[in-house]
Amino acid sequence: MRNIKLIIEYDGTSYHGWQSQNNAVAVQDVIEKALLKLTGEKCSIIGSGRTDAGVHALGQVANFVTNSNIPPEKFSYALNNILPDDIVIRNSEEVPLNFHARFSATGKKYRYVIYNSRQRSALHRNRAYFVPYPLDFHSMEKAIGYFVGTHDFTAFKAADSGVKTNVRTITGTWLKKDDEIITFEIAGNGFLYNMVRIIVGTLVEVGIGKLSADDIPYIIESRDRRKAGRTAPPHGLYLMEVYYPEKNEMTDDYARDLRII
Amino acid sequence: MRNIKLIIEYDGTSYHGWQSQNNAVAVQDVIEKALLKLTGEKCSIIGSGRTDAGVHALGQVANFVTNSNIPPEKFSYALNNILPDDIVIRNSEEVPLNFHARFSATGKKYRYVIYNSRQRSALHRNRAYFVPYPLDFHSMEKAIGYFVGTHDFTAFKAADSGVKTNVRTITGTWLKKDDEIITFEIAGNGFLYNMVRIIVGTLVEVGIGKLSADDIPYIIESRDRRKAGRTAPPHGLYLMEVYYPEKNEMTDDYARDLRII
Repeated sequence: MRNIKLIIEYDGTSYHGWQSQNNAVAVQDVIEKALLKLTGEKCSIIGSGRTDAGVHALGQVANFVTNSNIPPEKFSYALNNILPDDIVIRNSEEVPLNFHARFSATGKKYRYVIYNSRQRSALHRNRAYFVPYPLDFHSMEKAIGYFVGTHDFTAFKAADSGVKTNVRTITGTWLKKDDEIITFEIAGNGFLYNMVRIIVGTLVEVGIGKLSADDIPYIIESRDRRKAGRTAPPHGLYLMEVYYPEKNEMTDDYARDLRII
Repeated sequence: MRNIKLIIEYDGTSYHGWQSQNNAVAVQDVIEKALLKLTGEKCSIIGSGRTDAGVHALGQVANFVTNSNIPPEKFSYALNNILPDDIVIRNSEEVPLNFHARFSATGKKYRYVIYNSRQRSALHRNRAYFVPYPLDFHSMEKAIGYFVGTHDFTAFKAADSGVKTNVRTITGTWLKKDDEIITFEIAGNGFLYNMVRIIVGTLVEVGIGKLSADDIPYIIESRDRRKAGRTAPPHGLYLMEVYYPEKNEMTDDYARDLRII
């Protein structure tokens, strides 16, 4: 019995997100179906977390346990021959049995792409958020710094998400501009539901001058969702990377702390 | 009567190229249909040149003559409300009546995108040429310099294209690498049919070591299509820009030279 870790890229345009749902095709379903075809085993894969409909991934991580004797690093090639062209396994490898794509994760990095131009884009239509108003890049650049650190992000959480604590640590934020394309990246130990999209919606309000960069600390402090900006649309969002401890740090003790053994 | 110049972006994935054909939808048809809906006039638009099925554009240029009293710069907004989301007019403006998108053009710039990785890409699937073999970037960088200048490009021309001369001047070539993405750009006074795609196919053979960078001058000199590489696929190609003389240089004499008056 082997535990296989997959790194997955997908174009989320045609899927109802990562996780299986009734009456809608999710990325997870498509990969599970490909695994069934490949191994004859009906196995559930565990994703690092959900992504919403329309959200893309360059580095989603999932794992599954299998009795197949396919060499671990060959799973990517074998699955890619079966998968549709908008889903691809970038890498496959064997990991310790206590590796759990969700509970072992120590952090994530997201990218959000804004297309800032007078006219919409044909090529970026499902890949970036079209903002037709001029955006003040320097104000946005100033604003992103305020998110770094450990904060209660209640103001940046979708109302309907139930988690124990809204405190998260953001370890880095980056913003760059390349002609019409503004790219925002954010890394942290965890993200609340819709948190990146609400941060981006707020950054856009800073960019158009509706909010000032220096309002951000007060919005965070308010813990009031209504003080933050709108939720930016899903199709500009990319799950870039999921962080895990180095393999030799993944002891059973560590796994036990995470209550997976 | 006004002559309107359009700058057009399109995702070529769903179209049989720029130019109208029987039994297949071309980008030109879709724009003409939108113009008919907007102005009530059945007008033909003149493109700067054809692009093949699957080829994209960020800066295709076309013009049309209209009696409509819509302000020239408003055509882009009005058309974008009608056009499907994979075609967009980036700019519209009035130009002298002797402006002809094809015959007035003095040059073009193309981009070609290669996705160089062990596994195919989900997000770049219709936007870049997937090359799974390691490519030697420095050899390719050396090779591109040999194309600059005035040469007979018969070796880099699709067999079935009938033009008077195969001599073209390439004014610049650029190559850059950003992780898995290799971007090639080429500008010149004109391009033979499939010329950019055959140059890219040849560059890839240099990259994998089947040809040496220093073979390029001999391939050009041979005027033998069989000496060059394969034709790279259309979906990595982007028409970036079409060059025209400055407006005040566009005299009737100039137009007469081009035999459009």
